[in-house]
Amino acid sequence: MISFARGVPAPECLAVDELAESARAALERDGRTILSYGPGGGYGPLREWLAERHGVEPARVVITSGSLQGFVFLAQHLVRQGSRVLVEAPTYDRPLKILARLGAEIVPLEMDDEGLVPDALESALGAGDAPAFIYTIPTFQNPSGRTLSLERRRRLAELARERQLLVLEDDPYGLVRYDGEPLPSVFELASAAGGGGEQIAYCSSFSKTVAPGVRVGWFVLPPQLAHEIEALAVSTYISPPYLSQATVLEFARRGSFEPNLERVNGLLRERRDAMLESLAREMPEDARWTQPQGGYFVWLELPSGPPSGELLAEAEEADITFVKGTDFYPEGRGGERALRLAFSFVSPDEIAEGVSRLGSLVRAAAPTAPAL
Amino acid sequence: MISFARGVPAPECLAVDELAESARAALERDGRTILSYGPGGGYGPLREWLAERHGVEPARVVITSGSLQGFVFLAQHLVRQGSRVLVEAPTYDRPLKILARLGAEIVPLEMDDEGLVPDALESALGAGDAPAFIYTIPTFQNPSGRTLSLERRRRLAELARERQLLVLEDDPYGLVRYDGEPLPSVFELASAAGGGGEQIAYCSSFSKTVAPGVRVGWFVLPPQLAHEIEALAVSTYISPPYLSQATVLEFARRGSFEPNLERVNGLLRERRDAMLESLAREMPEDARWTQPQGGYFVWLELPSGPPSGELLAEAEEADITFVKGTDFYPEGRGGERALRLAFSFVSPDEIAEGVSRLGSLVRAAAPTAPAL
Repeated sequence: MISFARGVPAPECLAVDELAESARAALERDGRTILSYGPGGGYGPLREWLAERHGVEPARVVITSGSLQGFVFLAQHLVRQGSRVLVEAPTYDRPLKILARLGAEIVPLEMDDEGLVPDALESALGAGDAPAFIYTIPTFQNPSGRTLSLERRRRLAELARERQLLVLEDDPYGLVRYDGEPLPSVFELASAAGGGGEQIAYCSSFSKTVAPGVRVGWFVLPPQLAHEIEALAVSTYISPPYLSQATVLEFARRGSFEPNLERVNGLLRERRDAMLESLAREMPEDARWTQPQGGYFVWLELPSGPPSGELLAEAEEADITFVKGTDFYPEGRGGERALRLAFSFVSPDEIAEGVSRLGSLVRAAAPTAPAL
Repeated sequence: MISFARGVPAPECLAVDELAESARAALERDGRTILSYGPGGGYGPLREWLAERHGVEPARVVITSGSLQGFVFLAQHLVRQGSRVLVEAPTYDRPLKILARLGAEIVPLEMDDEGLVPDALESALGAGDAPAFIYTIPTFQNPSGRTLSLERRRRLAELARERQLLVLEDDPYGLVRYDGEPLPSVFELASAAGGGGEQIAYCSSFSKTVAPGVRVGWFVLPPQLAHEIEALAVSTYISPPYLSQATVLEFARRGSFEPNLERVNGLLRERRDAMLESLAREMPEDARWTQPQGGYFVWLELPSGPPSGELLAEAEEADITFVKGTDFYPEGRGGERALRLAFSFVSPDEIAEGVSRLGSLVRAAAPTAPAL
């Protein structure tokens, strides 16, 4: 099975030996703290390290076991039955499920090649109760691979301030860039404009830059919200497992973070290139796909192809798999002829082979009328 | 400050160097698995190890970041607004808060020196809707130090079967025994009686036997419930941090678990002895306290003493602290003249000194009428 479904790094991206050494050294350095209960918001020295990188007080940093856990805390805290939450359409599927479980009214916002469309946001803001928050992945978005342009980032930061809108900026892929210049985060733009960026809840993770299994995500929150989320963490698990948090910090302190990231980005760039080259070679003329400068995903649209659920069933018979577009829309309304293709896990050769098989299936399918 | 409030092991209980070596070895042995996403129910080899110890299929074992996290999952899954949950009175305060937040109707059940009183359970079962579950800590209970007698364990297992009552048996202290013979768990008794113990949700943790900071708790659940709780774990944090789970397993595989436990129990036995001797020396004649054969806690009742909130304020001025009894009752209704004294964290000398100071405060307080 060639999996374009797994949005995870290839095994060779994992710096096993260095992390093994880092775990040992972290425990030898600070074992009694790491092996005891402590603050619910995470391992103190890592909070300080992250706080310095983001230019905030350590108390505004809350480290969770992966950033999804923090999303759950935020959603539990901010969302009541019927609360409106604005999301990009398409967007990461797990938050959609969490919001649905909490009874949120999920409002999808249109995107184009430059990401979230600001006019769509403005009209959603004008059309109902004040939302609990807007959830956005501005850089190398999951699932689309799209990146919000600088101008739109500025506009989003402005809107957040003007409308007292809480923006949850999810940024796991920002450092996983293969070409082009880094863009400032919405949080950075909002901070630079004054007010400490307190309309923005920023989160990121070491899943893509160190390893997903360490389960170390972090949030930079407005002070009061940080306090409340930390209290929720304490009442859920007392304190998080510090060992993996201390291991990541030790890895960084040894100077391994940047060189490892460069190595990982090199491995992933080859995969991104293989994906884009294969799509250009294999896909029919009316197919469209994104051209991500980083991250894990390409979003492929096949306007005259079969519904992606049907295509997925055929693909799995040909030993390839992907995630169908509808999974990334609230209630599955959208993306009927779209596919999320992850290029992070499989090798360049497997990508070429998998896209070739996919192309055959697409070309063999009887052309159908585009979805309305 | 001499703290009788901290229910945590003394720092010298932590096997820092062995755990540092175990963390390194675990990553070297199985790094690619540990550093990746995987099953939400925990690190596979540890699930297998635990399953074998409990005589169940691995799929019935769900490992969480400390057992409180698992309690939250179970409560979220089983409790709706107004659901009845039966608890021992007094009981561990964190579950009370979680249940209150979820809107449960918390029904306190009377205890005596042999633990939960079965007649109290039977009349609660007869007095309202079927409860979502009963929460019990049968061995060296937090906060009372009491242990449910063998006869009552049998009765509880029977009642669970007869009434289709789900029993959540929380057993973090069972192996932390200083004298006397181990008792079978309610889960073991129910399993031996047939039906796979499927009315019992058993949980325990490595917090007291390895280190609290590893945050490795586990549940043995009926198959369907295990499946549902694992799904809830996946949708909350994808998978837990495997590093600390793999470290604990490596520690056990090296043969360190039993010798370390014996060493820890020796350290804690001295503290328990110091506590009981000091209480006998310092407390007034009408004071009563439990005589735990293990665990971390003594429950002290002062029928003619001041309300324990007042005593706590005075104690803190004398640089000693404890947790007042009312914290361990639903809505604080009960334990007005009771104290939870943890002997796990402080040294034997500090215990003698702290109880001496406490005794002076108690003797100096004007005798008051016993609470009704």
